[in-house]
Amino acid sequence: MVIVVKGNRESQQVDELIRWIEARDFTVQVNEGVHKTILGVVGDTSTLDISSISSFPAVEDVKRIQEPYKKANRVMHLEDTVVDVSGVKIGGGHFEVMAGPCSVETKEQVLTIAEYVKKHGGAILRGGAFKPRTSPYAFQGLKDKGLEILLEAKKRTGLPIVTELMSLDNLHLFENVDIIQIGARNMQNFAMLKELGKVKKPILLKRGIANTTEELLLSAEYIMAGGNDNVILCERGIRTFETYTRSTLDISAVPVLKKLTHLPVIVDPSHASGKAELVESLALASIAAGADGLIIETHNNPKCALCDGAQSLNEESFAKVMTKVNKLKEFMKSLK
Amino acid sequence: MVIVVKGNRESQQVDELIRWIEARDFTVQVNEGVHKTILGVVGDTSTLDISSISSFPAVEDVKRIQEPYKKANRVMHLEDTVVDVSGVKIGGGHFEVMAGPCSVETKEQVLTIAEYVKKHGGAILRGGAFKPRTSPYAFQGLKDKGLEILLEAKKRTGLPIVTELMSLDNLHLFENVDIIQIGARNMQNFAMLKELGKVKKPILLKRGIANTTEELLLSAEYIMAGGNDNVILCERGIRTFETYTRSTLDISAVPVLKKLTHLPVIVDPSHASGKAELVESLALASIAAGADGLIIETHNNPKCALCDGAQSLNEESFAKVMTKVNKLKEFMKSLK
Amino acid sequence: MVIVVKGNRESQQVDELIRWIEARDFTVQVNEGVHKTILGVVGDTSTLDISSISSFPAVEDVKRIQEPYKKANRVMHLEDTVVDVSGVKIGGGHFEVMAGPCSVETKEQVLTIAEYVKKHGGAILRGGAFKPRTSPYAFQGLKDKGLEILLEAKKRTGLPIVTELMSLDNLHLFENVDIIQIGARNMQNFAMLKELGKVKKPILLKRGIANTTEELLLSAEYIMAGGNDNVILCERGIRTFETYTRSTLDISAVPVLKKLTHLPVIVDPSHASGKAELVESLALASIAAGADGLIIETHNNPKCALCDGAQSLNEESFAKVMTKVNKLKEFMKSLK
Amino acid sequence: MVIVVKGNRESQQVDELIRWIEARDFTVQVNEGVHKTILGVVGDTSTLDISSISSFPAVEDVKRIQEPYKKANRVMHLEDTVVDVSGVKIGGGHFEVMAGPCSVETKEQVLTIAEYVKKHGGAILRGGAFKPRTSPYAFQGLKDKGLEILLEAKKRTGLPIVTELMSLDNLHLFENVDIIQIGARNMQNFAMLKELGKVKKPILLKRGIANTTEELLLSAEYIMAGGNDNVILCERGIRTFETYTRSTLDISAVPVLKKLTHLPVIVDPSHASGKAELVESLALASIAAGADGLIIETHNNPKCALCDGAQSLNEESFAKVMTKVNKLKEFMKSLK
Repeated sequence: MVIVVKGNRESQQVDELIRWIEARDFTVQVNEGVHKTILGVVGDTSTLDISSISSFPAVEDVKRIQEPYKKANRVMHLEDTVVDVSGVKIGGGHFEVMAGPCSVETKEQVLTIAEYVKKHGGAILRGGAFKPRTSPYAFQGLKDKGLEILLEAKKRTGLPIVTELMSLDNLHLFENVDIIQIGARNMQNFAMLKELGKVKKPILLKRGIANTTEELLLSAEYIMAGGNDNVILCERGIRTFETYTRSTLDISAVPVLKKLTHLPVIVDPSHASGKAELVESLALASIAAGADGLIIETHNNPKCALCDGAQSLNEESFAKVMTKVNKLKEFMKSLK
Repeated sequence: MVIVVKGNRESQQVDELIRWIEARDFTVQVNEGVHKTILGVVGDTSTLDISSISSFPAVEDVKRIQEPYKKANRVMHLEDTVVDVSGVKIGGGHFEVMAGPCSVETKEQVLTIAEYVKKHGGAILRGGAFKPRTSPYAFQGLKDKGLEILLEAKKRTGLPIVTELMSLDNLHLFENVDIIQIGARNMQNFAMLKELGKVKKPILLKRGIANTTEELLLSAEYIMAGGNDNVILCERGIRTFETYTRSTLDISAVPVLKKLTHLPVIVDPSHASGKAELVESLALASIAAGADGLIIETHNNPKCALCDGAQSLNEESFAKVMTKVNKLKEFMKSLK
Repeated sequence: MVIVVKGNRESQQVDELIRWIEARDFTVQVNEGVHKTILGVVGDTSTLDISSISSFPAVEDVKRIQEPYKKANRVMHLEDTVVDVSGVKIGGGHFEVMAGPCSVETKEQVLTIAEYVKKHGGAILRGGAFKPRTSPYAFQGLKDKGLEILLEAKKRTGLPIVTELMSLDNLHLFENVDIIQIGARNMQNFAMLKELGKVKKPILLKRGIANTTEELLLSAEYIMAGGNDNVILCERGIRTFETYTRSTLDISAVPVLKKLTHLPVIVDPSHASGKAELVESLALASIAAGADGLIIETHNNPKCALCDGAQSLNEESFAKVMTKVNKLKEFMKSLK
Repeated sequence: MVIVVKGNRESQQVDELIRWIEARDFTVQVNEGVHKTILGVVGDTSTLDISSISSFPAVEDVKRIQEPYKKANRVMHLEDTVVDVSGVKIGGGHFEVMAGPCSVETKEQVLTIAEYVKKHGGAILRGGAFKPRTSPYAFQGLKDKGLEILLEAKKRTGLPIVTELMSLDNLHLFENVDIIQIGARNMQNFAMLKELGKVKKPILLKRGIANTTEELLLSAEYIMAGGNDNVILCERGIRTFETYTRSTLDISAVPVLKKLTHLPVIVDPSHASGKAELVESLALASIAAGADGLIIETHNNPKCALCDGAQSLNEESFAKVMTKVNKLKEFMKSLK
């Protein structure tokens, strides 16, 4: 940690700050400039709070040098983490596609979709039973009945399932779910993240629409600090001024996260764009950028989808995208 | 709701869409242009899902005309709502200041601060017992012990208290809390909002850092739809590219919200700026813009604050700000 | 400047960097940590390029400590600058309102507006002769004929005029203009800024919609470095995800700029909001936040305005706003 | 264009609006709802100003249906435009890489780089002679001497050159330049765009950091409306809250622009990320997303680069990236 202070070591205010830090068992190195002095703080500063330091009157600026996350940090774990989802591997060279409807609507719908997801090469079935909806008057999902339908589809097709948890109250219903998804709006629901640290199940952690990659890694750290290392990160677009797409897919987040962390990183081109016609391009771009997987919305009858129909591919389009995804995935291995 | 479609009424795809909408008991008015046709949908469209409609192949664009919230809508309730917080009124001409430390640290600290908050004209005591922190390694609050300290301060000073709820698991501990605060990160924690609809207590709902004013009103609608009309909205800054301040205070949100809703609107200049030196200017600007109150961080010893010291005013600065706040508040009445 | 490097002083790569910096006449102070070393660079680092340093392989991060602008810096010039606009003073306690139509349309229109702007207390007449329009098919202004109309209005009312320069080709036409306005889209038109440094006339420099306050100050520095110190800064809203308002007025920019620079700072509530109904609240908020002036759009017949009618006040509304503006301006002096 | 008004056709205010529009030779279709009425305006509404309409008291909201650009619109020109750059084709299946140093520094440097750019498959040489720099104290480019060096490199290698124009004053110096680049900061320098409409030379138009894809197309329309159809669009990242990368590459802009316009679209992964280590991933992602070309910074000695060294590839890295770029480009053809 680097602290810029007004005045020099002789100043009483600077001296007070140095003693405050040293009292917390850090070493302070003093670097006097003409007008300003720079203090280098040595030690594990991830426990030091920047704003406490900022409140000292002598302090002009504080910069953190060390990343504030540890278990998620690539530095601490050079090898890629491979998350095992009931036998399906993700990360460390294993690329997989999760696909399915935005919402679970009927058993027939989910079984139809699950069959064709499997047929076209999808490895994991997605589907929302509990739905986060901006409006209280919008369809909120089939809830526990939706979960039952997903589990039925899992039994029939053998595909592991991923579905969103919206409240810890429902955690007991997720026993046979293979990946627990945490949506963008709950990325900083810290009470929930802490509980997921105690679960021994893969967690799909979606980036919040206004969260930095560092904050995403800190949320992963919450889960890992609790003892659960099976975290899959998901870039799903951030909120910007551009309105043509629903969110702005931050494609750079893929190589950035792959550098900073050993955790697998997947991309959701459907929610990022909000438009079915853009899914193919964004899916291919994500693979080329180095993603470990994709999560794609598909629906046997998009115009009847109770939510997010606009971004769902029908079977024909999904099949076409999957053909290209699979070819590009193989090709990228040859580029390494 | 207005739908722009390709083709005209004779087109099979347009006809299919019209029949789909009419089957849901809406009236469709058809408006044929040269290249495009415009459909006006008449009825209570707040229950119609935009993305289901978007998924019809003929649809180019869909625009909502009616605001998607009802109970929070000024149109439905012309008079300002006055929220009664254990005798302290907010809204409808009643302006009040909530103040206190970011985190509850010790009993002595909270009692000291509560005394001077009261002395300088603050009407409600704020303080965090459960703290949302980006890093799992940062101080997470004193939790139930912190709540006890706040309740002790309430007993001694008579000031009602406002404090943040981070998990429904702790709701039973909030029985004697006067206002339940929902933080920016939980603004779209819909499971929590639904439960708060059943509570008969004022809710302080903070705007998420990347949420629009419309989304804030929809989150208020979740609480109100459940039966609790005592919602106080709080503008606390949004996330932008500017980094000098922690967030960018969206001062326009004050008159915008006052126009769209009857609910009281307060401002948090401390979190918005993240800098104590800016609190006075932003507090005065908020009053001039029409806010119904302020929530300000103050600490008897900011440099020891376990979190957010940089944005906390000490007693002297707080007193100075309050003197100006009180004078400007009175002056603004004369401008009406 | 603080540089974080991998390795210690013995490392060849670190050594190479240190020698590179020292060759440029800076002193380097070395601060060795456990894993990383911090280099403090002493000297006038405003001439050192961050990205050249970043390209050294040993470098992890570079932070600038000193602000990169000098002449605009409050540190170098503690007193507020007072800009004299043909006798009307702005800054250093002098608060003034500039007002007028978005576009100059007809002589009659401008004269009518100029008369009532003066009558209600406006000190400077604004009006666009050259108009920056997003679309090539929109009205582009009356150009030199528009300038003549403004100058006629100046002669009749005695009000100094402010109008936008869009191309250096037209600079010769601005001889009798009192303030040259540089619009948000040209804030980083560096070729233009350099030329304005040679002009001895007040410049109204509007903040770009995606520019930081630091970038605004650096653009002011371009003008001042050329020899023209008469720069008035203008906050006019930044682009964010919120769509209810046209831009998001960054009210914090007012106290932030007043702290960082000695130049006057005014606010444009009309362009920031894009809605006439919000102008009053934002104008009052700006005064309370410490602004040195306002620039407001008003039109005798807003619905005929060839551009930006939606944000223009008619005379009646303008008069109402001015009454409150003048009262609040006086009141704020009593709060000092 | 769709206008939402309060009241119905009998209302005087609505009637006044309808007559105002009809007087401009548009047809108005009236669609009465319960509380609100919708007016559909038929005709070429690209000449109708939204804000004039908004200023009518009856108007609640106005939405444009038709895109406001014509010549750039794919609808008007279904075939891809192929821009011919002195024999090198871009667009319509022709993919090319432009590469070179950020700034022209010395003849030796530019010749060295030009040789290896050609050797590794680059088709066009880039290099800045006039440099837009945020600070007036930073290196501003070699100007006309820099142009001479570029032209010398063109003569020796046969590579066409692309370089930035910062002021119309220098346009006469660009006679032998093959592509005139308009930087992000000048994307809405409308005076400049108009002049470029008269030039018969390819223009590389970079998207502004806070401009939408629609605004980019409107700026292209300025050039095309003047008579120059040789416009190449360039996505180079937008400004968001994320700070790890310099800008956020909006990868979705590639398929979005390819859908909306017939003009070629290239990507600048160097400026978007600001980090050499991310260029490869973003370059590959851009190709997979459908880009027609890339513009990449490379420098024979990045740490001596007078600007933007941090994002420049050295020859070795550039060669590695080009190998992958060329392979992926070929592979993508097989996916069509």
